Amino acid sequence: MQNQLRNILLIVSYDGTNFCGWQKQTKNEKETFRTVQGELEKALFKLHKHKIETNGSGRTDSGVHAIGQAVNFFTDIESIEAKNFVPALNSILPKDIRIMSAREVEQNFHARFDAKFRSYRYYIRCSDTIFAHQQPYCWHIRRTPDIKNLNEMAACLSGEMDCTVFSAAGDQSLSKSRFIKKAEFFVEDDCLIFEICANAFLWRMVRSITGTLLDFDKKGFSKKEFQALIESKDRKAAGVTAPPQGLFLWAVDFPEDLTADNSNQN
Amino acid sequence: MQNQLRNILLIVSYDGTNFCGWQKQTKNEKETFRTVQGELEKALFKLHKHKIETNGSGRTDSGVHAIGQAVNFFTDIESIEAKNFVPALNSILPKDIRIMSAREVEQNFHARFDAKFRSYRYYIRCSDTIFAHQQPYCWHIRRTPDIKNLNEMAACLSGEMDCTVFSAAGDQSLSKSRFIKKAEFFVEDDCLIFEICANAFLWRMVRSITGTLLDFDKKGFSKKEFQALIESKDRKAAGVTAPPQGLFLWAVDFPEDLTADNSNQN
Repeated sequence: MQNQLRNILLIVSYDGTNFCGWQKQTKNEKETFRTVQGELEKALFKLHKHKIETNGSGRTDSGVHAIGQAVNFFTDIESIEAKNFVPALNSILPKDIRIMSAREVEQNFHARFDAKFRSYRYYIRCSDTIFAHQQPYCWHIRRTPDIKNLNEMAACLSGEMDCTVFSAAGDQSLSKSRFIKKAEFFVEDDCLIFEICANAFLWRMVRSITGTLLDFDKKGFSKKEFQALIESKDRKAAGVTAPPQGLFLWAVDFPEDLTADNSNQN
Repeated sequence: MQNQLRNILLIVSYDGTNFCGWQKQTKNEKETFRTVQGELEKALFKLHKHKIETNGSGRTDSGVHAIGQAVNFFTDIESIEAKNFVPALNSILPKDIRIMSAREVEQNFHARFDAKFRSYRYYIRCSDTIFAHQQPYCWHIRRTPDIKNLNEMAACLSGEMDCTVFSAAGDQSLSKSRFIKKAEFFVEDDCLIFEICANAFLWRMVRSITGTLLDFDKKGFSKKEFQALIESKDRKAAGVTAPPQGLFLWAVDFPEDLTADNSNQN
């Protein structure tokens, strides 16, 4: 396997506040927007002295955070043990991107195409006031929603389903069908959290679902109306899109055999 | 009590990241530094159409946060109920300052001079890696300290004591004696927290104590050496000053009779 590039899987956390999302973007001939992928590829360029392409599992929007974004890239640096890409990259990266782990994976592993499930969490603070340091990481609403009703509606989001009603104008997916594994509200400390896990998501789908569920609960609607909304496939009938700062890309699941560390194999 | 100004007590939360501390400061003839007090007085000016002076309980440094800073000011606006200064000010203030509560207090109440106790919390994350959104709100250290040893040393900080050894160069307090009510480490979620409560603090005293305790634990020192350090009154013998971003002004205690709402009295 001489001269074969190593395929490295990074788990990446970022504070989305000051980024124009995950995906690198060119503003004009001379400028680029500040994106997570852009900053990560800059840091990889500094280490490798040549351009390195990265693949991310989820294309998070402007202002959306990540606890466990998965990213892979190929390296020709032989002197850095896979796990040591953590301190090597963290010493170069801006503080609002932190590498949490790094390991070698199978040659044909691809962080986007091989992701089986993506989990997102949406944080909501329901109270009259909010602490200043919570403000960039949750949606502040004043009313206390009915969590039982929210969970009864969320139970309609299950299995293979047409998600057209939650797609944003501009979504370019060919199929609007997605497989939803879990969709549940729970309370942790002083926040209401909506956790949703699916094979993949349409553009802004989690924020559209979150906004719609809270809007429906506020209007006194229940699972009957929510099920009818899903079946209508009418984007205009859905509620508001929840703001970006409450959303975290929480974790990405892969088939085990692709992420196995093969460093001890021949 | 016609025309008597009402004395209003605010509980204020702020994210210290982008502030040059609590206290208003002039940079030069034309400019001022961005401070919490400066922004708060700007918002009060917008409401009152004239200058309003504020008194804060604790003069937090650049980068230090607050959950419960106490602030009082006198108002001549009769049309705003005391508690409605919360939405009125929050709609004007920048997002990194949030008013948590507001109420009328006795005429002679002063947030600085009447504070009986101030509590601070210092957040430490002990692990190889740190999530990006935790980075502005804790001190990241890689080793796991011995919490039992830290608490045995912290127990030396009790009652009326000379705190000279923890005073920073530039501290202008006449007396270096302070009454410490509580000093304790505990674990909450994935953070180690140091909570200290005293009648008042010298400049940078909490950060000096936190840095010194962690430094002493790392060096294998215990309460004997820590007690000797306190008695030495030798500032140079203390450890490093912990960085500002881990520190939160947590709460301020006042005598009950001064904060009593007198709006129902004649």
